[in-house]
Amino acid sequence: MDAEDLAGRVQDGELRLHELEQHADPDVAAEARRLLLTEETEADLDAVGAYTFDAADAEPNVENMLGAAQVPMGVVGPVRIDGGAVDGAKYLPLATTEGALVASVNRGCAAIRAADGATARVLKNAMTRAPVFRVADVGEASEVASWVRDNVGTLAEAAESTTNHGELRDVTPYVVGDNVFLRFAYDTKDAMGMNMATIATEAACDVVTDETPAELVALSGNLCSDKKPAAVNSVQGRGRTVAADVEISRDVVESYFKTTPEAIAEANTRKNHVGSAKAGSLGFNAHAANTVAAAFLATGQDIAQVVEGSNAITTADVRDGDLYASLTIASLEVGTVGGGTKLPTQAESLDVVGVRGGGDPAGSNADALAEVICTAALAGELSLLGALASDHLASAHEELGR
Amino acid sequence: MDAEDLAGRVQDGELRLHELEQHADPDVAAEARRLLLTEETEADLDAVGAYTFDAADAEPNVENMLGAAQVPMGVVGPVRIDGGAVDGAKYLPLATTEGALVASVNRGCAAIRAADGATARVLKNAMTRAPVFRVADVGEASEVASWVRDNVGTLAEAAESTTNHGELRDVTPYVVGDNVFLRFAYDTKDAMGMNMATIATEAACDVVTDETPAELVALSGNLCSDKKPAAVNSVQGRGRTVAADVEISRDVVESYFKTTPEAIAEANTRKNHVGSAKAGSLGFNAHAANTVAAAFLATGQDIAQVVEGSNAITTADVRDGDLYASLTIASLEVGTVGGGTKLPTQAESLDVVGVRGGGDPAGSNADALAEVICTAALAGELSLLGALASDHLASAHEELGR
Amino acid sequence: MDAEDLAGRVQDGELRLHELEQHADPDVAAEARRLLLTEETEADLDAVGAYTFDAADAEPNVENMLGAAQVPMGVVGPVRIDGGAVDGAKYLPLATTEGALVASVNRGCAAIRAADGATARVLKNAMTRAPVFRVADVGEASEVASWVRDNVGTLAEAAESTTNHGELRDVTPYVVGDNVFLRFAYDTKDAMGMNMATIATEAACDVVTDETPAELVALSGNLCSDKKPAAVNSVQGRGRTVAADVEISRDVVESYFKTTPEAIAEANTRKNHVGSAKAGSLGFNAHAANTVAAAFLATGQDIAQVVEGSNAITTADVRDGDLYASLTIASLEVGTVGGGTKLPTQAESLDVVGVRGGGDPAGSNADALAEVICTAALAGELSLLGALASDHLASAHEELGR
Amino acid sequence: MDAEDLAGRVQDGELRLHELEQHADPDVAAEARRLLLTEETEADLDAVGAYTFDAADAEPNVENMLGAAQVPMGVVGPVRIDGGAVDGAKYLPLATTEGALVASVNRGCAAIRAADGATARVLKNAMTRAPVFRVADVGEASEVASWVRDNVGTLAEAAESTTNHGELRDVTPYVVGDNVFLRFAYDTKDAMGMNMATIATEAACDVVTDETPAELVALSGNLCSDKKPAAVNSVQGRGRTVAADVEISRDVVESYFKTTPEAIAEANTRKNHVGSAKAGSLGFNAHAANTVAAAFLATGQDIAQVVEGSNAITTADVRDGDLYASLTIASLEVGTVGGGTKLPTQAESLDVVGVRGGGDPAGSNADALAEVICTAALAGELSLLGALASDHLASAHEELGR
Repeated sequence: MDAEDLAGRVQDGELRLHELEQHADPDVAAEARRLLLTEETEADLDAVGAYTFDAADAEPNVENMLGAAQVPMGVVGPVRIDGGAVDGAKYLPLATTEGALVASVNRGCAAIRAADGATARVLKNAMTRAPVFRVADVGEASEVASWVRDNVGTLAEAAESTTNHGELRDVTPYVVGDNVFLRFAYDTKDAMGMNMATIATEAACDVVTDETPAELVALSGNLCSDKKPAAVNSVQGRGRTVAADVEISRDVVESYFKTTPEAIAEANTRKNHVGSAKAGSLGFNAHAANTVAAAFLATGQDIAQVVEGSNAITTADVRDGDLYASLTIASLEVGTVGGGTKLPTQAESLDVVGVRGGGDPAGSNADALAEVICTAALAGELSLLGALASDHLASAHEELGR
Repeated sequence: MDAEDLAGRVQDGELRLHELEQHADPDVAAEARRLLLTEETEADLDAVGAYTFDAADAEPNVENMLGAAQVPMGVVGPVRIDGGAVDGAKYLPLATTEGALVASVNRGCAAIRAADGATARVLKNAMTRAPVFRVADVGEASEVASWVRDNVGTLAEAAESTTNHGELRDVTPYVVGDNVFLRFAYDTKDAMGMNMATIATEAACDVVTDETPAELVALSGNLCSDKKPAAVNSVQGRGRTVAADVEISRDVVESYFKTTPEAIAEANTRKNHVGSAKAGSLGFNAHAANTVAAAFLATGQDIAQVVEGSNAITTADVRDGDLYASLTIASLEVGTVGGGTKLPTQAESLDVVGVRGGGDPAGSNADALAEVICTAALAGELSLLGALASDHLASAHEELGR
Repeated sequence: MDAEDLAGRVQDGELRLHELEQHADPDVAAEARRLLLTEETEADLDAVGAYTFDAADAEPNVENMLGAAQVPMGVVGPVRIDGGAVDGAKYLPLATTEGALVASVNRGCAAIRAADGATARVLKNAMTRAPVFRVADVGEASEVASWVRDNVGTLAEAAESTTNHGELRDVTPYVVGDNVFLRFAYDTKDAMGMNMATIATEAACDVVTDETPAELVALSGNLCSDKKPAAVNSVQGRGRTVAADVEISRDVVESYFKTTPEAIAEANTRKNHVGSAKAGSLGFNAHAANTVAAAFLATGQDIAQVVEGSNAITTADVRDGDLYASLTIASLEVGTVGGGTKLPTQAESLDVVGVRGGGDPAGSNADALAEVICTAALAGELSLLGALASDHLASAHEELGR
Repeated sequence: MDAEDLAGRVQDGELRLHELEQHADPDVAAEARRLLLTEETEADLDAVGAYTFDAADAEPNVENMLGAAQVPMGVVGPVRIDGGAVDGAKYLPLATTEGALVASVNRGCAAIRAADGATARVLKNAMTRAPVFRVADVGEASEVASWVRDNVGTLAEAAESTTNHGELRDVTPYVVGDNVFLRFAYDTKDAMGMNMATIATEAACDVVTDETPAELVALSGNLCSDKKPAAVNSVQGRGRTVAADVEISRDVVESYFKTTPEAIAEANTRKNHVGSAKAGSLGFNAHAANTVAAAFLATGQDIAQVVEGSNAITTADVRDGDLYASLTIASLEVGTVGGGTKLPTQAESLDVVGVRGGGDPAGSNADALAEVICTAALAGELSLLGALASDHLASAHEELGR
């Protein structure tokens, strides 16, 4: 059937919008949906239909496919990083629609370059999934929690039977009344790991429900916590906990940011620390989410996880007249295999970073990607703080008639 | 100059990566960058270069352009919405790389359709920007705060002189020691409004620094709070505060979700309420950020603002045997003009929703978009809660040998 | 009846423990309860029974009275305060069982004294109560919220009909699905005002339920938020929002704290800002709750409201070589009339501060008490930061062999 | 010297207020301070001076002693508790100035009694102290964190060398830029343990600074987190994590609370869950802090730790027509030895509960006290929820003219 036929059959009620791939190849199915929407909404979908990958390749990533969104992609770098998993100069593609973002991050990268590079480290690696169980009362809750603490090995065996790569690192029970939450934490190597963790946890839950009186209510009980702003992530981390820092000489600060280390440190304190404190925030940074989001989009990460990627703290201090600045992201969930990483433009972006596919040792590519993104986000912090501080200085200069 | 020439001159140190547009048209500049990166990183950038829009059109959205990320786009709907700004059946494009997301949201839409549609309302509309000022001490802070409270009209005049559309609604002072934060709240009509608010606030800051002893430290002091998880947004709202709800009969719940209203309500309580409470979360929902992110990507919103879009509360209760469910998003920052909304695929997506460009009255298109996204996110909540609850029921059935 | 008779009748099941005041004067009733407990638990309650006030005077404050807890009370000061409601040197009694607390706060007071006093200001004054209503759906919620915004005058009239002193300042509606919360904010003058606000809000709720379809579910819906750690209070304030600060010369810092302004500023940044940020805290201070609790206990405040009193931010910076430090408490709920303020020891403590009973103008005594407590808490911050910083210096000196 | 002499010498500047105990016995010193304050402030301090304990006994608890605050003390109970450390009927003294509190909690106790008692369990026991260290950069931070993870045994040896009872359970490193926080968690048995943990941690810090490049900045880095509202405590617990629950038949609910299980569950959902969610709260309860504060005051606990005691979640559901309700307090910091527990009235209160001094096994008395307080706080929750729900029902009945 061609696209028009398919569209007609949907309009006649013979087919439903999501069934088209059963009757035609994915590109034709997508064309049929565009035809239908064009009629029903008077939208013209030529651009959406002008995608250049093979629709069949996107089947693991989308349903009811219409085509593709095309988002402009720029690049920042190179920036030299002394990391745990990366060592050397790196470029990072950023996809965004926010004007000035790429330029701003790139300015920060230039300053880091002038400072002989940044240091970066993945400090923790744990993808989590936390099912919630119902128990009879707090007495039973206490018993179930004890059982779990005593049987982590058994749970690990069940969980790891479902995966070639994942390792169960820890299971932490939390009790609230007749609810028992078990936070399973995995090393998922180069995968972001949410699916792996979910499947493995499901197997472990079977053991829990077999061996204890607990009944499973939901495979995710929000103590994971996926795609929600949550202190459990900012305190304990999720995915990669990663930090980057740099020491920039006063000369470089003045030359690149037209301001002083003192002014940047002050802006950081008043804005990122005191302002965020007063705001009741979990994000003590200027705009880390901007860089994270653009890097996630370019490299095929799950963009809803930008939420956790914003759990980040920026520090900036004057050290012997120079500027020391750091960015620590508590929960940066990245992978170089699976999810959106296989799509053509995304895979190429990973190639630019040099981290496409599984790393050697396993996990090292995702670690490297985390360190690069964190360093770029640090560059973005420096650049925005510098801009805020220099605006202020500029005004001060004007006031003083200089 | 052609792309190879440009690339060569960058390699020779004669040009810098961001200067290429000064010497060639944007498409050639992008090609040159791809050439350079292909050499330096051994990445193949054919897919990134296969974008189909005109690079010049992306100049307001990106710098150092390489090409574009292509993200698969699907569609959900139609879903009938009785809204404040929208009335009728709507489709919504979703761009994502997360398999099953579009199908899941669409299943929820089908259930809402079977329930004769959802209700939705924009409850508040306020884009905010909060500069931080330095004062001498808390005495001066108190005076500045008082001055601001007494001179909102003057500040509005200054702020509104910079914009044709924006209106200053409110200025709230917050004092912390020798810091004074002023949270300016604007009606930015159909624009998401961050830029408009920033420019207007800058003008108002000039008045503050002229008329009071306060000195501006940073035009954004994080009480805004942009792209950070922050209680100030989840409590007071930012952008659109929007809610959607639906009452679904027991039959429809059982037919579409293979579970009961009671099981969905229980899963919602234990996961979204108790689990999120224990997690120290500002997000009391299952995965609202997924729908928000995919809709933002499709329609040209700022994807880093998915962070605020996750400040959402889902409720689910049994009402006379049927299911009542709601989703309230405190801070959904959307626009139908400006930013990424003009790019071809994004503009077409807005056309699918019927909200491209400025609305009549001004602001109604952005309101409508907020109501549609919130309804789709509600559909996503229902679908995931239904899946969690039915898995549980399924297991229960197996245990019981049925 | 004497105490033994009463106790016997309770043991015989003829009377219940809380009914004794109906059959004897309060001191005898309390004695009877002590007799009973002495038998049933083998506790000796002589000390509890050695209270020196008249039990009848405590009837508004306690039920099932046994006697009294006696808590040691010390005093700090005098400390000179340039405040909005207080001007001059003040003593503050502190009741506590934590050794070293009074001494520590007093050391800070001495340093402030040496610095010619602190500045303090009440920045906001609003006691809140937030009932929750049930509505049919988000459409109705929107209508109710609009009605409330348009009828604040009517609500004020109803609310203020119940009180001689309180004034309704503001009513803010918050919608979550089919829940409407109305946060009523009052100026309750010299009363802490929780009871006044509750009674006034109850009257206003009658108007809401009469005039709109909303049904009252609970007179307190936790958006107040009373006696819970909550961002709504730390952002918007509750009771008094009050700040105090001081500039202390380097000499005084070194003399009183055996450390430097730089070391105190660093300890404050790393502990109170970065540490609290990482902890997901609403309290960016060292131990403000200690001073608040001890002052609350001495002066008859509601000690459960120490919870909100810990929503405080400490700043410490080096200014031209000297130390600038501030403490801002977002939600300090104090009164000089009502509650425990009439009890003998508590009233005497208020006399020490010079703020017993209603102020002239109304509210000025509670304002003054807030400024004094905030200043003492700032002293406590300085003293603890100084101790932490000097320990560090001491260790550093030892390491260096000096 | 008598009191007048002492007072005179302070007025002459020969002695300072805190030096009086060096020249007279503590009761005379206190009298001298009262004399001084009576002159300087015109307060009459007779009641403050009418304390009945021996001032020398309060020397570990207070400095600059004036006398004592006397706070009315009532009693609730008996309430039968099936606990991990307590089994049987218990009374609990409550000291408060808030009228109706004791009566309210006692009403809840009566309902629990009618329901054949509550279940309670201590789920976790960990007093924490978290120093903050300065390192050179994130690379060094990573190394220090690794060193700590590999040397917990060595740190335990150092820490435990300072204490007869305490055991180091765990040390968790957290890195933020050039800050390393180490959260030490101890089993402090029957002591609340803050001092024990601090001293032990100081010894462990010496090892860290000897063996690694880290330099100690502050012995407490606020990740502990003591006396601040902080998610780290509500997620991970501090002191005792304790839960209590009860199932109350419909008849008992109706008889004691004049409302239905459904109405209580609804009030709990809308107020304690949705309201607290919207408030950005860590306290999902009605007024747990009230009971905690009054019990802390009566039994000699540190009342500033009421802050952490408010990190509590209440659940209420209808189970087969009856009411199930629970209260889980994440961080209830209690002890039965040390601190204020030795003071006469406080020690007697502990005797009423039957938990004075060290337990057998060690820790069991503090566990028991935690279970009793949690059960009483649950009673307070039930009583207030019942009152809110029945007010609502009452109003509903009036409206309907029945």
